[in-house]
Amino acid sequence: MTPQLDPRLDLVLERSVDVPPELVWMAWTVPEHIKKWFTPAPWMTVDCEIDLRPGGIFRTVMRSPEGQEINNIGCFLEIVPVRKLVWTVALKPGYRPANPSFDVPAFTAIILIEPHGKGTRYRAIALHKDEADRDAHDRMGFSDGWGKALDQLVAHAKTI
Amino acid sequence: MTPQLDPRLDLVLERSVDVPPELVWMAWTVPEHIKKWFTPAPWMTVDCEIDLRPGGIFRTVMRSPEGQEINNIGCFLEIVPVRKLVWTVALKPGYRPANPSFDVPAFTAIILIEPHGKGTRYRAIALHKDEADRDAHDRMGFSDGWGKALDQLVAHAKTI
Repeated sequence: MTPQLDPRLDLVLERSVDVPPELVWMAWTVPEHIKKWFTPAPWMTVDCEIDLRPGGIFRTVMRSPEGQEINNIGCFLEIVPVRKLVWTVALKPGYRPANPSFDVPAFTAIILIEPHGKGTRYRAIALHKDEADRDAHDRMGFSDGWGKALDQLVAHAKTI
Repeated sequence: MTPQLDPRLDLVLERSVDVPPELVWMAWTVPEHIKKWFTPAPWMTVDCEIDLRPGGIFRTVMRSPEGQEINNIGCFLEIVPVRKLVWTVALKPGYRPANPSFDVPAFTAIILIEPHGKGTRYRAIALHKDEADRDAHDRMGFSDGWGKALDQLVAHAKTI
């Protein structure tokens, strides 16, 4: 369904990139690719698990240069190949309600991918329950972080 | 996907009923039917909105004999016609994370419907994030409430 956006509650990263939708999709849905771009450097993605179906797990482990690790567990909600990927950290895999995280406010991510010339129009949307969560996610560096990760995705996709 | 149950965290109502799966499904997915059985008497379901697709709204309004109203808003997650219905109150329609409710702990409901002779093997599962939420939902009368509602469903289905 079409996302119902609310600028008071949502964060959006929108860019056109010069890699085709099929490579953007592959970068997002294959663990070996995710590890190459998902976490802005100098942090790294050291593990990733993907069960690409509604209710399936989306797990990543991020590691800082000092060795601090953050384990993120989400649940896929909608998968429209090469067009749309939706997952949330408000549910665990299998749709079980999740405990609130101390690291990141609860959000649902919607990744929209459209052909744009020879490249891709890319939108990454984060939905939050209230303005406080949106603002906290914003202060944590959503735009810079997701933008830098997208740069890394594009650079990696060109090597696939 | 097959639900991953955890007896410490989940509540399950399982019964065989003497109405066919098609009528149980209809009772669950059509607002005019929901209003006839969803809330254990003497409370009533006075309004219902259903957008039967992943991300769609599942809203009910319950009213007590004294006129107190409780508005429940959930989000459908999975729809397998005549077999499986999954929705959660941990997300609002459109998959936005929900604010915690004061009335009911966050849960995800999985309704499983299977042919059983001329009737239906019916399972209603509520998934919770922790034992405290499970126990609170149990103390609120999950088994009695959902069981009584199922009796009402069966009685109503026989009139369809």
